[in-house]
Amino acid sequence: MSNAEGLDAVVIANGEAPFLDSTFWYLTEQDSGSFEGAIAVVGRDGSLDVIVSPLEEESARLGKGEIHVYETRAERDSLIREALGGLERVGFNLGSAPYSAVECVRSAAGLSEVADASRAIARAVSVKDAKEIEMTRKACRISSAVAAEIPGMLSEGVTEREVAARMDNRMRDLGGSGNAFDTIAAFGAHASQPHYAPGDGRLGKGDVALFDFGSKYGRYCSDMTRTVFFGKPPEILERAYAVVLEAQEAGLAEYRAGAEARAAAIAARDVVDSSEFGGRFIHSFGHGIGMEVHQAISVSSRSPQILEAGNIVSAEPGVYLPGIGGIRIEDTVLITEDGFERLTDFDRSLTVV
Amino acid sequence: MSNAEGLDAVVIANGEAPFLDSTFWYLTEQDSGSFEGAIAVVGRDGSLDVIVSPLEEESARLGKGEIHVYETRAERDSLIREALGGLERVGFNLGSAPYSAVECVRSAAGLSEVADASRAIARAVSVKDAKEIEMTRKACRISSAVAAEIPGMLSEGVTEREVAARMDNRMRDLGGSGNAFDTIAAFGAHASQPHYAPGDGRLGKGDVALFDFGSKYGRYCSDMTRTVFFGKPPEILERAYAVVLEAQEAGLAEYRAGAEARAAAIAARDVVDSSEFGGRFIHSFGHGIGMEVHQAISVSSRSPQILEAGNIVSAEPGVYLPGIGGIRIEDTVLITEDGFERLTDFDRSLTVV
Repeated sequence: MSNAEGLDAVVIANGEAPFLDSTFWYLTEQDSGSFEGAIAVVGRDGSLDVIVSPLEEESARLGKGEIHVYETRAERDSLIREALGGLERVGFNLGSAPYSAVECVRSAAGLSEVADASRAIARAVSVKDAKEIEMTRKACRISSAVAAEIPGMLSEGVTEREVAARMDNRMRDLGGSGNAFDTIAAFGAHASQPHYAPGDGRLGKGDVALFDFGSKYGRYCSDMTRTVFFGKPPEILERAYAVVLEAQEAGLAEYRAGAEARAAAIAARDVVDSSEFGGRFIHSFGHGIGMEVHQAISVSSRSPQILEAGNIVSAEPGVYLPGIGGIRIEDTVLITEDGFERLTDFDRSLTVV
Repeated sequence: MSNAEGLDAVVIANGEAPFLDSTFWYLTEQDSGSFEGAIAVVGRDGSLDVIVSPLEEESARLGKGEIHVYETRAERDSLIREALGGLERVGFNLGSAPYSAVECVRSAAGLSEVADASRAIARAVSVKDAKEIEMTRKACRISSAVAAEIPGMLSEGVTEREVAARMDNRMRDLGGSGNAFDTIAAFGAHASQPHYAPGDGRLGKGDVALFDFGSKYGRYCSDMTRTVFFGKPPEILERAYAVVLEAQEAGLAEYRAGAEARAAAIAARDVVDSSEFGGRFIHSFGHGIGMEVHQAISVSSRSPQILEAGNIVSAEPGVYLPGIGGIRIEDTVLITEDGFERLTDFDRSLTVV
């Protein structure tokens, strides 16, 4: 990352939670600490300076980098000046740093411009090493195991909130360190909202039930969606299920190192758009997954990105029918030299509970 | 918020998760949806325009505001231009918007400057109405109930991770919608790191055990810390406990509408600094709490803020002794006209399990 695009240095600038850039943990190899307001500076020579408040000092010293501690804002500014003084081309992770944090560093260091290092950072964090793949694999095993338990959690009248809480508890029981994101449990017509938050909706006979969930293992995320039917569903949803499954297969078939990310998105969209559900696949096919559940890679029809071995991405086509329901099938997938490996390997066939 | 500091409009600009500004949900009164990349524009007349992708359209229409949907980046830019066209003084929530999101709006709208609306926004979201207080009260009841269960979860050899998972599961069982933040469970010397992440540390006789945890109820957070002793602790930690409890009382005594926030921080720090633990209280006394667990208000010795009735803040002095352990006692507190109300009302007296 250090020599990215001719930059003299790359700065990671954290805000307050939740505005924390996971790149900070990636660089410092920190298992502990949140590091609000902390700053990491990667030099051209690969040096790493870490500027923290006394609150985080002890945690910081357990990770990588040379640690600098400030008590006051003036001391913080002075440490920033020392780390960046005289440098001209300083890059930031502009999508993951608050405007005020970047401005504060720019002003303290007297930089005349703010360079964008986000692409170089995205590329670095998107190619996972063996340890990161193993952590993600464990996170995926946990969610796959919970997927297998979902049918047993469903009974007439159970609420979305209740099932979501049971799923989250089971992910923790199985060794997860926390939710990768707020679990979605959507019954019946609620399933037509891709980002629905579980409420008091009760499960009834003939309902579709969509579950989008992921665990963290350490700091690494899994992400999967399964959609099941509680009793005989409306036929239109059975047809939608078949189309979504076919769309996922079509997209997955394009996943391999060296392929354009958009090829998968286009292949999946073609399946949906050539069916009776044309226009009902209203989001992208996938996204990168890492310490953040949406990380760095976009698998959409307009993505300019090329997949690399070691990328971890989702494959998640969906069909959404307002007033009726929705179908989504999602897996977390590792890109390999000659294809892909599904890390969330639970069964995807149409399931009637 | 609309007439804040002579601004023509205030813009909330979301990034990708977790870089989402809770002000978006506050303005739109959204229970559902994450709204990545969404934009909310509050006009001088109080109008609310909401710009979203098709993915969030259905959810968006369940909340407040006039909804505008874009398919492409060009359409998004054009909607931004329509919402902000001809305006000069446009403010952003600069601590809670990614640099790239602000730049994208600035550039699309042709703004020559970026104004800071963060203080006006902070003030608006910091004064809670009756409904928000009730939500927070419920979140606090859930964590207080779990605090009462902690002694029953402790046994020789149990790991930090196991206890944290049980606490999180119980918060969900009791109606919480999720963790307000990653639960801290720190045994023995680990408790000297204020932001320690629970690991494989096992509880042993004579260990101090620190738990910092909070639930969400709906989107509202609670935040509390209790520190207990597993068997007879080192005497120095018993003395530290007494000092921290006294520091919390001293700080709380300064909490009331109209008071300077720093008065509480100074009062608490004076107690610690005039004891044998001088210099060991290494963070601020409190912070605002709302849809984000660290929100808007800083209760530090240097804070310029004045407390108002309806503010919800933490009161959390601590003493940290590297190599030995740490003590923190924290409550979530509502500021009232003539004082305060502890919303996390579980017992704080020294507890030996």
